[in-house]
Amino acid sequence: MQFHLNGFQAGDPRVAPALAAAQQPGAALPAQVDVLVVGCGPAGLTLAAQLAAFPDIHCCIVEAKDGPLQLGQADGIACRTMEMFEAFGFSERVLQEACWINEVTFWKPGAEQGGIVRHGRVQDTPDGLSEFPHVVLNQARVHDFYLEQMRHSPSRMEPYYGRSVLDVSVDPGAADHPVTVRLARAGTDRPETVRARYVVGCDGARSAVRKAIGRQLVGNSANQAWGVMDLLAVTDFPDIRSKAAVQSEHGNLLVIPREGGYLVRLYVEMDKLGEDERAAQRNITLEQLIATAQRILHPYTLDVKDVPWWSVYEIGQRICARYDDVPAGRADRQLPRVFIAGDACHTHSPKAGQGMNVSMQDSFNLGWKLAAVLRGQCEPGLLHSYTAERQAVAQQLIDFDRDWARMFSDRPAEGGTGGVDPKAFQRYFEQHGRFTAGLGTHYRPSLLCGEATHQALASGFVVGTRFHSAPVVRVADARPLQLGHVARADGRWRLYAFAGANDHRDAATGVQALCRFLAESPDSPVRRYTRADQDLDEVFDLRAVFQPHHRELALEAMPALLLPRKGRHGLVDYEKVFAPDLDHGPDIFALRGIDRAQGALVVVRPDQYVAQVLPLHAHQALAGFFAGFMRPVS
Amino acid sequence: MQFHLNGFQAGDPRVAPALAAAQQPGAALPAQVDVLVVGCGPAGLTLAAQLAAFPDIHCCIVEAKDGPLQLGQADGIACRTMEMFEAFGFSERVLQEACWINEVTFWKPGAEQGGIVRHGRVQDTPDGLSEFPHVVLNQARVHDFYLEQMRHSPSRMEPYYGRSVLDVSVDPGAADHPVTVRLARAGTDRPETVRARYVVGCDGARSAVRKAIGRQLVGNSANQAWGVMDLLAVTDFPDIRSKAAVQSEHGNLLVIPREGGYLVRLYVEMDKLGEDERAAQRNITLEQLIATAQRILHPYTLDVKDVPWWSVYEIGQRICARYDDVPAGRADRQLPRVFIAGDACHTHSPKAGQGMNVSMQDSFNLGWKLAAVLRGQCEPGLLHSYTAERQAVAQQLIDFDRDWARMFSDRPAEGGTGGVDPKAFQRYFEQHGRFTAGLGTHYRPSLLCGEATHQALASGFVVGTRFHSAPVVRVADARPLQLGHVARADGRWRLYAFAGANDHRDAATGVQALCRFLAESPDSPVRRYTRADQDLDEVFDLRAVFQPHHRELALEAMPALLLPRKGRHGLVDYEKVFAPDLDHGPDIFALRGIDRAQGALVVVRPDQYVAQVLPLHAHQALAGFFAGFMRPVS
Repeated sequence: MQFHLNGFQAGDPRVAPALAAAQQPGAALPAQVDVLVVGCGPAGLTLAAQLAAFPDIHCCIVEAKDGPLQLGQADGIACRTMEMFEAFGFSERVLQEACWINEVTFWKPGAEQGGIVRHGRVQDTPDGLSEFPHVVLNQARVHDFYLEQMRHSPSRMEPYYGRSVLDVSVDPGAADHPVTVRLARAGTDRPETVRARYVVGCDGARSAVRKAIGRQLVGNSANQAWGVMDLLAVTDFPDIRSKAAVQSEHGNLLVIPREGGYLVRLYVEMDKLGEDERAAQRNITLEQLIATAQRILHPYTLDVKDVPWWSVYEIGQRICARYDDVPAGRADRQLPRVFIAGDACHTHSPKAGQGMNVSMQDSFNLGWKLAAVLRGQCEPGLLHSYTAERQAVAQQLIDFDRDWARMFSDRPAEGGTGGVDPKAFQRYFEQHGRFTAGLGTHYRPSLLCGEATHQALASGFVVGTRFHSAPVVRVADARPLQLGHVARADGRWRLYAFAGANDHRDAATGVQALCRFLAESPDSPVRRYTRADQDLDEVFDLRAVFQPHHRELALEAMPALLLPRKGRHGLVDYEKVFAPDLDHGPDIFALRGIDRAQGALVVVRPDQYVAQVLPLHAHQALAGFFAGFMRPVS
Repeated sequence: MQFHLNGFQAGDPRVAPALAAAQQPGAALPAQVDVLVVGCGPAGLTLAAQLAAFPDIHCCIVEAKDGPLQLGQADGIACRTMEMFEAFGFSERVLQEACWINEVTFWKPGAEQGGIVRHGRVQDTPDGLSEFPHVVLNQARVHDFYLEQMRHSPSRMEPYYGRSVLDVSVDPGAADHPVTVRLARAGTDRPETVRARYVVGCDGARSAVRKAIGRQLVGNSANQAWGVMDLLAVTDFPDIRSKAAVQSEHGNLLVIPREGGYLVRLYVEMDKLGEDERAAQRNITLEQLIATAQRILHPYTLDVKDVPWWSVYEIGQRICARYDDVPAGRADRQLPRVFIAGDACHTHSPKAGQGMNVSMQDSFNLGWKLAAVLRGQCEPGLLHSYTAERQAVAQQLIDFDRDWARMFSDRPAEGGTGGVDPKAFQRYFEQHGRFTAGLGTHYRPSLLCGEATHQALASGFVVGTRFHSAPVVRVADARPLQLGHVARADGRWRLYAFAGANDHRDAATGVQALCRFLAESPDSPVRRYTRADQDLDEVFDLRAVFQPHHRELALEAMPALLLPRKGRHGLVDYEKVFAPDLDHGPDIFALRGIDRAQGALVVVRPDQYVAQVLPLHAHQALAGFFAGFMRPVS
């Protein structure tokens, strides 16, 4: 955490100084904004919190409900989401408050009459998949952390509650702020109008923004009703504090332990539905849910004391073909102005824990792109990549989700005579751990993601997947930390230069030559895209990792670009140079398969995805990559 | 973190529901309280935050200043203090915001004319000393975390600012609230009066409470002026982000890097003082401090950009003979009513990082004792142990501090011809790591700390020292965690039962027999001291650690006392049973030297100090220990 750069400031360093134009409590909806975010769900709040990081962007978020969510429905937080929370600065608080999912147990029909028996137990997240665990926390609390983040930002952003979108129109001929949104305000009959450069509909499965741009959720449901309930209960079922998948003669059930040590969520398989029948039509009661859960868990008892929340739903997956307002085939002629994210463009069944997580990743993908375009750093064509990247991911996850949900609703059958074999079920879970951890996303080569040509230089940093953090030691102060945690949700690109074996002794090659190129060449992206009034690392954040023990590295011999002078006093930033953690291990070079002779340059996007793996000397390839979508400063 | 026990509550679980009698903003000073805490420094706030945990105790804290501290002087946070912050629930936030001290480097006069050269480098805190690092954070931020803790407590406690103590008197004949305190309120000329059961003076080196009880700080100073300054500066001294002890021909200097990555504190040796001369009399200027630092650091440069704070002081150590109002020799006839803590009863030189840390440990020692007496759990005679335990600790630390300060002000001299040898200086630092980490405290046998008779059963949990946490796995949910982190600052005793090798299979001995004794025997401390309306673990928090892998332990076979039913619904608490972390290690049984055949019972006080190590079967010894100072419920 870095602060005091421009002088000592008393108080909480998480609270940024307020802009003169900061949002005032009770203020009227602004007439013009850069970005209007519609909906305070996980997607909308991720986007608003991301845009709040940029004092030069005027963003406003509206919500139809009259206040913040008190009791959320989603609760699973995937490892990948925790990595993103780390970039937003609140992973510690989530870790402290959440329930950690450490193991999954598997139960099948037992030998005794009608009972169940545990037949398997696996670690939920395999060692090394992420530095974060899979956790469970009420969605409302995730909202709270984002809202606090926004409140502490320079613009003091707060949602405007009680506003529903009436219509959205785009005037392609408008010089600026081409999108007009009309909103109804609860308690008044006079609609409000906001003109925006961009509008993002994060307004859920019944999205008004989606309807306004003529997109549709298409898909189907599995004709199977499920119940879900959050319970305070007394049971002698021994795995009530583990994630437990129970297959029984009376149907299937999933146990999700919850935060606080007492609350538990049960997903309970209920009735088969007819073609096109909705679960709601069955009028399934809470008492039926509890009775079914009790039958499935028999011979264990379940004595329900309190039910804070319950619901009945049918499994279904639906998705939009495109996530923006550009008609198919017109991407070469039309720039997107309206986007949709989260449940507005894809819905999943709850049990695989995808909904909230994928939604947040949608808007984390979109957020930095909108910021880069609005701040003049990138060409607006960049925005086409949002639908291209995220729609493909959702489609893949929906296929996974459908398989997973089908297996989950199937009869247990050992030996393979119809139904699903319990062991096969467990294997499927283990094989798809990357998906449930949110780590299945692999963006294809594009303007923003290179080819895997030089992948062998750093086999553990797979181009198109998220940067997989690993332990290092910071040279200036010998502090052990996770390299990936230097990445903040601040819209910057990270350039991780892993030095070759003799690099720190040789000024002519490797990291030193790269630093010279970046500092001096007219082709350098640092020089091309960083304004004179910006800190040297404000667009590209270069970090170097050398191979020797940190005590063998001399800070005073490092290139100036790795000790950049910043802020109004020109203070030195000492947090750019790292060594492997050779005392406590593991060694990041071994762990991530980095070529020890040549080293590697790993280019990481503002949303933490690996854009390129390049040789350290591939200066022109690096320059060419950024020239594909960035705008030189004038 | 446990919550929702008595029903689901939306919102931040760190915020307790407010009492009807909670403090109202702007309320007048109450006329009667259980405890009046004087002074909002580290000692006072630790005490107030501790007492705020008990809704049945009425505590009030006053401060002479007109608002919270903005810029603190103390900054070092020892490992031991971090362990205490963990019990208060805010260690994560301190870890995130603070500067970690990872290494200490040592510099001596170099070969070149007048220069300095690094001659040594050691890890600041040896591996395994604590699960927490040594960190540095502005004292004002530590205050903020405590103030938030108080604000979130049931009583919504806020300091009453602008109140200075005029006098304190004790009426030994009063039936109740025998202490009367008169306070001056800034801006008015009418004194306020508060009557209290107990008063604690945490009002600093010039303590009015200390004077009122006729105690004096005695000691001496080393006739040496030092300067201290917090800087934003540019330097090529390579260890500016490490703790660095510099001995030069021009005097000595200590570098303490600070939070935020840019700020640094320098302690600079200035003039020798005459007998009885105060540093303030020298009129040393900031410019002189900077010039001296520049001379010492030569040939490295120091270009100072901003100085948020600086001061000049003389090294000195002073201490009170007793920390309460009971005259020496009268402890058998008189109960203490007024206490002093922190700088009010001992002062140190700043560089060994003791002042703030020892002060907080003072009031953490006192807090649970006051609570236990006020709540009727313990005999008031318990309060004598505060001065007995803490005065001895401070005396020992003052001796350490004096040696350390002397070496620090001495001339560097290699080869032992007067002055201090740089290598000897480094060795002294390494040997005394336990002290600077705050882990030198070792309470002697007393009512509250047993003899070391059975120490061999758990050689790593030394009776009289703080419980040294180690990794375990919680059996119910397979979560890896630090065993010591189950301890909250909630006034409860912890009983850690480490099972013998075959314990989990044998109902007649070890943990099972202990649980039967505790649950059923009329001699059981649990039965004797826990009221019927309290949860079964509200006074004694029993935790068991078995030796097998957690997957080999059957939760359903555990004694009922390890799955206690709690709260208004009688929900099961699943967080009492642990196993060693055999997958990721190390094994707590090996790490802490626990007798694998017999196991051990480790009794830990509410302030995290080991009170007893006993055989698991020593039921009567356990009962006898608590009978020494606790009051049976009627």
